[in-house]
Amino acid sequence: MKIALAQINTLIGHFEYNVNKIVAYIQKAKKQGADILVFPELCLCGYPPRDFLEFQPFIKKCTESIEDIRKYCNDIAVIIGAPSPNTEKLGKRLYNSAYFIADNKIQSVIHKSLLPDYDVFDEYRYFEPGKEHHVITYKNKRIALTICEDLWNLNTSFYIKNPMDALITQKPDCIINIAASPFSYDQNQARLDVLFNNAKKYGIPLFYCNHSGSQTELIFDGGSAVVNSQGILVDQMEFFSENIKSYELDTIEDVKKAFQAVTEKYDLINQALICGIRNYFDKLNFKKAILGLSGGIDSALALVLSVQALGKENVHCLLMPSLYSSEHSVKDAIQLANNVGVTYDIIEISELFHTYCHLLKPYFKELPFDISEENLQSRIRGMLLMAFCNKFSYILINTSNKSELAVGYGTLYGDMAGGLSVIGDLYKIEVYGLSQYINRNKEIIPENIIAKEPSAELKPDQKDSDSLPPYPVLDTILFHYIEERKTAEEIIAKGFDKSMIIKVMRMVNTNEYKRYQAAPVLRVSQKAFGYGRRMPIVANFDF
Amino acid sequence: MKIALAQINTLIGHFEYNVNKIVAYIQKAKKQGADILVFPELCLCGYPPRDFLEFQPFIKKCTESIEDIRKYCNDIAVIIGAPSPNTEKLGKRLYNSAYFIADNKIQSVIHKSLLPDYDVFDEYRYFEPGKEHHVITYKNKRIALTICEDLWNLNTSFYIKNPMDALITQKPDCIINIAASPFSYDQNQARLDVLFNNAKKYGIPLFYCNHSGSQTELIFDGGSAVVNSQGILVDQMEFFSENIKSYELDTIEDVKKAFQAVTEKYDLINQALICGIRNYFDKLNFKKAILGLSGGIDSALALVLSVQALGKENVHCLLMPSLYSSEHSVKDAIQLANNVGVTYDIIEISELFHTYCHLLKPYFKELPFDISEENLQSRIRGMLLMAFCNKFSYILINTSNKSELAVGYGTLYGDMAGGLSVIGDLYKIEVYGLSQYINRNKEIIPENIIAKEPSAELKPDQKDSDSLPPYPVLDTILFHYIEERKTAEEIIAKGFDKSMIIKVMRMVNTNEYKRYQAAPVLRVSQKAFGYGRRMPIVANFDF
Repeated sequence: MKIALAQINTLIGHFEYNVNKIVAYIQKAKKQGADILVFPELCLCGYPPRDFLEFQPFIKKCTESIEDIRKYCNDIAVIIGAPSPNTEKLGKRLYNSAYFIADNKIQSVIHKSLLPDYDVFDEYRYFEPGKEHHVITYKNKRIALTICEDLWNLNTSFYIKNPMDALITQKPDCIINIAASPFSYDQNQARLDVLFNNAKKYGIPLFYCNHSGSQTELIFDGGSAVVNSQGILVDQMEFFSENIKSYELDTIEDVKKAFQAVTEKYDLINQALICGIRNYFDKLNFKKAILGLSGGIDSALALVLSVQALGKENVHCLLMPSLYSSEHSVKDAIQLANNVGVTYDIIEISELFHTYCHLLKPYFKELPFDISEENLQSRIRGMLLMAFCNKFSYILINTSNKSELAVGYGTLYGDMAGGLSVIGDLYKIEVYGLSQYINRNKEIIPENIIAKEPSAELKPDQKDSDSLPPYPVLDTILFHYIEERKTAEEIIAKGFDKSMIIKVMRMVNTNEYKRYQAAPVLRVSQKAFGYGRRMPIVANFDF
Repeated sequence: MKIALAQINTLIGHFEYNVNKIVAYIQKAKKQGADILVFPELCLCGYPPRDFLEFQPFIKKCTESIEDIRKYCNDIAVIIGAPSPNTEKLGKRLYNSAYFIADNKIQSVIHKSLLPDYDVFDEYRYFEPGKEHHVITYKNKRIALTICEDLWNLNTSFYIKNPMDALITQKPDCIINIAASPFSYDQNQARLDVLFNNAKKYGIPLFYCNHSGSQTELIFDGGSAVVNSQGILVDQMEFFSENIKSYELDTIEDVKKAFQAVTEKYDLINQALICGIRNYFDKLNFKKAILGLSGGIDSALALVLSVQALGKENVHCLLMPSLYSSEHSVKDAIQLANNVGVTYDIIEISELFHTYCHLLKPYFKELPFDISEENLQSRIRGMLLMAFCNKFSYILINTSNKSELAVGYGTLYGDMAGGLSVIGDLYKIEVYGLSQYINRNKEIIPENIIAKEPSAELKPDQKDSDSLPPYPVLDTILFHYIEERKTAEEIIAKGFDKSMIIKVMRMVNTNEYKRYQAAPVLRVSQKAFGYGRRMPIVANFDF
């Protein structure tokens, strides 16, 4: 029995595109001599379809598309993820299902039992949990067909059951799991552990097929995998790209030496961000990006990533020095632009800034220079970039990092502007880490940009450290608070100053209003700002 | 048996404030001679607490606060909504609970069974559903204690059970329901119908206690109610304000004449928006609002609402005419400002606009005037307003309406800027409706503002109708699509042109990226943009 895994990248709601792709992969699988071809969870409509699931024409298209695909399912069985209607009288109107199609006929529709409803997941919003568990039989093999989260309750207690406990009593020969499991830099190890533990506990091999490609802020890394009953990783497919590969069920038990998956943090993050940027542009049918180059490390990294994703011919930069910009800023930015080979324009913003100040003078009178004037500069830059976007159909790449977003060290409608935040899930120390990774073979980002002290350059001699703790300290506190949801006491116990922790936590909490209006952030950690972290704006809680 | 309902307004996470308020209401209830005092769902921590529920110190504070309150629960029983830990080994770690406290002791903790997970609700994200159903006995009365959604499955099939079906077998004397049910202009009738149907079906009286006050975008309208077993509305408490009122259980069956609740759409919306604006400012500890007055109806209405909520002394306006502003715009805006008695400044933006155009000339060359130049003007205005906010601690009131937000007829970082969108859940025709309601006794909004044809005034002789269908048509299509989730076919059947429907739906879908960065919208309908409507940005679905 040959099982093929197709980790495809579909477009949410574009059924024609998705069906054509699925059919093309069915042909490929037939050529590979596969008996069964496995596609990812909900790949028919794209994942996550969100509230499209509440629209009848969307569901109708799902059902019709399954009918279209069915015609191609001769001489091969196909497993494909799609929503299916709940025909019972009670409960939510849909299931998150796996269609099992063979001999041009829908043989079974298996429903997901464990519905994730945390972080970026909202599945209980749409789906009724499956309650019945039946193995599928095909060509004398018995298959336990499960959907993503169904395998994820083994060492947790989040759900009150494990579907595999019911399925294993029916003596399956293998587990197939279809997934839409978004990337984070530590997700692959967690995922492989789940696969190993299931294969070993139930004593049968496991075939795992995951989405590839990104959908707005969620990046799906592929990495579909085969694990034998001893918990040995037989193979893992590419990360971040579509592919299909076939495996002979009867021989994978012989594998003794585990496949070694790449798990270098910055390598994965780099690939993920390239995938995220590229797919965002491709799927929206945009080609060209623009960004503001300040001479600092954030915009430098965002530029390199954009060039890696879109090609240097599709990225344009604006350098917009003000009277507070240091001399090295422009020099460093130009060197970087030349290093990566992109075009740039230099637009001095001092005249505009003075025009604003002059216009506001009758109202601001002799009040001291403060955040108003700092933000004016940042917003002038945002406006110029947006004007280029409107005139030439660029998408503005946002260059905010996670530390800034966390503590509100950024200007709404200024440097917080942009269509996509590409490094918004990287703490400042990770911005350095990824920059150094990018420079591993060759100096792409000028060393001076990496070495200089971070500054917003919005007033004379300004340094980030004037208003923020040093980044290694700040980022560690933020990580404990945001990713690990640790308490102030727990962070104090790690050797940090209590008043600083309280101050940082308060900055995070009171800047929810800014993040609410931030661009979508490409998610590379277990807890990114945006869809997966939902905090009230109006609240008052001190940790 | 005297039952008191306290529809209080708490602050999310501010346990000291909330406990003090709860204790004060316990004293009031004692003075009223109440046997039982009922508080709303999750009022101890504030609703919705969102991801604060994932933080241990937050949960600990809930438990400690219950202990504080317990000490005051002598000579009175208190029912109060709060999260409670799930002590079972399996399932989510919290319940959404009602504590029943009497004789200074927690007598029972009842868990919500039906967890809403649609529109603005995410309760399954945090809570395990309650599975057991026991009536509470106090002073020889048996009480079926339920939490909000627990009563809402009577004529629907969304959940697979009705908790009341189990509770009624234990022969309760009455139902008490604690709620956090957000306002929409048609919610009160739906809510009363639910109460009537439950009271009649189970043949016992019903006491319903709802939150009052707003939490960011969600407005809770109070309107706590008592219904007798014949389904007669015995009383309904005030909308949008805190209060406490006691009812004698044994006499409410004698009531034959139903209380008449106010349900005039624009009256309710007006009160709701005042409540929403006032609470947003109060709870964030801000006093002063600013907004840009264009002379059009949207900013006119937003101004009046702001003044109603905050007082004329706390609202300041900027009039920012450009070379494309018509003469009547400034005149009408000044008349409005004088009518409502607010201060204003007039700042001409032509010089700034020309400075931008001049600076961009080397890059834009001879390319025609287009959306870039239109947006520049809108963004200049946004920047000036934000500069005032930064300098003088105003919050910028956003003036976008729901029709504009729907089709993307607004400028990101320009007129879409602001801390709170106050009319973002009103279609343009509803903006007119509410304006006329506001003018019902006296011309507050100058008639000319209501009568003139809508225009963004960003280029010569521009009219909204140049790029949009007439608003009565547009808004009807939008309502069918957004609120009712109707298909294109269904809307065509109502007599609209197919190509126009497709065009409108496509505009809605492709402008998701703008709404993602919009200010939080005060919710007054069943389907507002923001938290309750979750659509992918990158998608491609044609209805």
